[in-house]
Amino acid sequence: MAEQITPREVSYSDWFVDIVLKAQLADYSPVKGCMVIRPRGYAIWEKIQSHLDRMFKETGHQNAYFPLLIPESFLHKEAEHVEGFSPELAVVTHGGGEALEEPLVVRPTSETIIWSMYKKWIQSYRDLPLLINQWANVVRWEKRTRLFLRTTEFLWQEGHTAHATREEAEEEALRMLHVYRKFAEEYLALPVFYGRKTESEKFAGAVTTYSIEAMMQDKKALQAGTSHFLGQNFAKAFDVTFQTQAGSLDYVWATSWGVSTRLIGAVIMAHSDNRGLVLPPRIAPTQAVIIPIYTKKTVDQVADYAKRVFARLTEAGLSVEMDLDDQNSPGWKFAEWELRGVPIRVEVGPRDMEQEKAVLVRRDTGEKRAVSVSRLPEEIPVLLEEIQKTLFRRAKDFRDEHTHYVEDYDSFKRIIEDGGFVFAPWSGSPEVEARIKEETKATIRVLEFGNEEKASGKNDILTGEPARHIALFAKSY
Amino acid sequence: MAEQITPREVSYSDWFVDIVLKAQLADYSPVKGCMVIRPRGYAIWEKIQSHLDRMFKETGHQNAYFPLLIPESFLHKEAEHVEGFSPELAVVTHGGGEALEEPLVVRPTSETIIWSMYKKWIQSYRDLPLLINQWANVVRWEKRTRLFLRTTEFLWQEGHTAHATREEAEEEALRMLHVYRKFAEEYLALPVFYGRKTESEKFAGAVTTYSIEAMMQDKKALQAGTSHFLGQNFAKAFDVTFQTQAGSLDYVWATSWGVSTRLIGAVIMAHSDNRGLVLPPRIAPTQAVIIPIYTKKTVDQVADYAKRVFARLTEAGLSVEMDLDDQNSPGWKFAEWELRGVPIRVEVGPRDMEQEKAVLVRRDTGEKRAVSVSRLPEEIPVLLEEIQKTLFRRAKDFRDEHTHYVEDYDSFKRIIEDGGFVFAPWSGSPEVEARIKEETKATIRVLEFGNEEKASGKNDILTGEPARHIALFAKSY
Repeated sequence: MAEQITPREVSYSDWFVDIVLKAQLADYSPVKGCMVIRPRGYAIWEKIQSHLDRMFKETGHQNAYFPLLIPESFLHKEAEHVEGFSPELAVVTHGGGEALEEPLVVRPTSETIIWSMYKKWIQSYRDLPLLINQWANVVRWEKRTRLFLRTTEFLWQEGHTAHATREEAEEEALRMLHVYRKFAEEYLALPVFYGRKTESEKFAGAVTTYSIEAMMQDKKALQAGTSHFLGQNFAKAFDVTFQTQAGSLDYVWATSWGVSTRLIGAVIMAHSDNRGLVLPPRIAPTQAVIIPIYTKKTVDQVADYAKRVFARLTEAGLSVEMDLDDQNSPGWKFAEWELRGVPIRVEVGPRDMEQEKAVLVRRDTGEKRAVSVSRLPEEIPVLLEEIQKTLFRRAKDFRDEHTHYVEDYDSFKRIIEDGGFVFAPWSGSPEVEARIKEETKATIRVLEFGNEEKASGKNDILTGEPARHIALFAKSY
Repeated sequence: MAEQITPREVSYSDWFVDIVLKAQLADYSPVKGCMVIRPRGYAIWEKIQSHLDRMFKETGHQNAYFPLLIPESFLHKEAEHVEGFSPELAVVTHGGGEALEEPLVVRPTSETIIWSMYKKWIQSYRDLPLLINQWANVVRWEKRTRLFLRTTEFLWQEGHTAHATREEAEEEALRMLHVYRKFAEEYLALPVFYGRKTESEKFAGAVTTYSIEAMMQDKKALQAGTSHFLGQNFAKAFDVTFQTQAGSLDYVWATSWGVSTRLIGAVIMAHSDNRGLVLPPRIAPTQAVIIPIYTKKTVDQVADYAKRVFARLTEAGLSVEMDLDDQNSPGWKFAEWELRGVPIRVEVGPRDMEQEKAVLVRRDTGEKRAVSVSRLPEEIPVLLEEIQKTLFRRAKDFRDEHTHYVEDYDSFKRIIEDGGFVFAPWSGSPEVEARIKEETKATIRVLEFGNEEKASGKNDILTGEPARHIALFAKSY
């Protein structure tokens, strides 16, 4: 038998950790809160990177690289920024055997170092917009960590753009929110709610933070990507002005936006089952695995047949593995490759061989179909797209089933307690938001676009005051 | 006029810095010794990465990611390793507002953290070989830094492999040396000498270090990539043993190998000229730039024509830019795009338009040819390959012209003083090596494979003792 994983029903968090460790996606490291991303996990990140990078470039962005280490004083230039990040900093105090004159922080995010450079690069409206993205590692000293979802060091991309007008910067922040939404839905098969964050939940230094929020199988929310309209906050902090087309001087407008290796955690949590990892085909490093089923008498013939099928699929440009290990039974291999989340299993046995066929087995539904080998290069891509759609549909049905609209606080508390998303009227008061969080652990995940109109005539779920918003509440990661 | 750069003859180092800054490849940062890689420089790194990553995967390697921060005690487990890297460490002493119990170093290289994980992952010969590569940033506290060539933080890849036998690990180290050699020659158009390093020049912790060495236009050597056979040194330091096929227990054998953003510096220094950057086409992010040449009367027509040519080339899969800015003259644009190193300029004027033609101008030689627009999608790739070959040939001719074999120390000193590579007989004595370095600043770059046979009957260049090697000496970066 392949290694057993804890059933979801027994312990959701053990189930998650078991999948991560036993599918060899990541491992604990000897450094507190830091993980090692193993090849099977990193290959998923490479898939995520390649799709997102293309989407960033299609929207006019270029990649660059800024220093890991940031003078500590830079963070102090933006008041909210330093307040938000100070508790999470890793600080380099010594270099080359000597104490540094000024400590350097390991970047928790790069607004400050990047805007110190933008000051050098931006003089005129002709230098704008500046649309830069960086793929990098960041460090945030977290008290409680969890593989992929919250680690002291993580990998991410951070976009940092500079614009001549408020409107253009706001458009950019929304454009990138929609790039994230599209990516989450079409590639990760994760349906998301999206909108803006409340004041208390926004990024330290932002005017507005937008986010996409997905539901995990334990009905908790996971913030999967954020895009910030930064106003002129960082331009003022770093004195970045430009000559406008009209000849006057103005501060530059800014956005920043990022997603991280946390997305891998989201994908695992949203789609996997008690047999292990389930991966959306579009981000699966291996699309299909060929497993021969033979008796002692047929081993050589069937292995040869499997190799022929493998060659055919590889030539067709599919990403395929083949498991010819003769130390393990077919049943063991089925379980092992299910654990690893390969979307399609291709079984080839003596009878398939006689008929020039193979049996395709879906990881998501277990459904089987026999297909002529000559048809495989067309059938597999079609089946992969079916699996992709099924995963999205399944996740969306699950989310919709567990998303409610309520107007009374008792129902609110019961749903939050049982697990689920709740849309509810909210007055807009930070005190109400804080009290609900304290009493139920639910936070406002987003205020959807256009939610204000729906709030007309409704009353705040806690205080009964007139509501200004229909807010989305949930417990979250 | 586009910005002027210092001529090579006036100051080679100013010339280099001017190209880096004015072609906007990189910029100085506010953090001592750290640079910012700007989009035009980072795009070259992306090209380098994509080719190398493919070559690594074709040779069976997988990517993974290990923590940035390493417990300081780990470095002390391998005596030579800690001695080599201690003076260059950046040390994190505080995290989350508190002093750490044990300081963490920012990785200068990852052998120690990786082998601490290999201990968990390797039990049996069935777990071997383990062939892992990491794309990452590293920090080495350098006293004197230089854009791209030596920076406190740099980007690189580091391969770390584990093997069951000495032979297999030695083979791997050589395999990767040859991957680097092939990449340098075929993609960077850099001819290289290769072989092993002497004891005094090898990597801290290695049994054998192999390297590739290129000649820059100032006739100094630049170490462009290294591959190390680590023996069982790190396996012993981290107690990584495995059960052999025969059932006994043995320490695991290791290699590591890396190249860095320094390669971009090598490419700039080897191929560029007084007009700016010259890039080998295979790593040029932009293969051709279209520049319209118009009078006031023809501006709209010619711009339309340029757009048609642009569309045609883009559809053909070529990476093309077009400069329609009407604030700059064609002459200014020629200079600007030459500075940026785009391999081919495509000029389109009114007469070209009438004839459905365009003029292709080579960045490397200035040679022009008029080509029918319909033929451009075939002609440009052919011309790019010609440029690639020309750059390699030119660099090789230059190197060969300035590479000498001498047997007397006076000639040796004169050549080293004037600039150039010198093959010379060497006894193998570290004292001789050290004295030559002291007297001439020349170091032994490599001992080529098979050099020992050629040394038979020769006498050491300094002492006259019997020679054991023909060593390659040069001043270096």
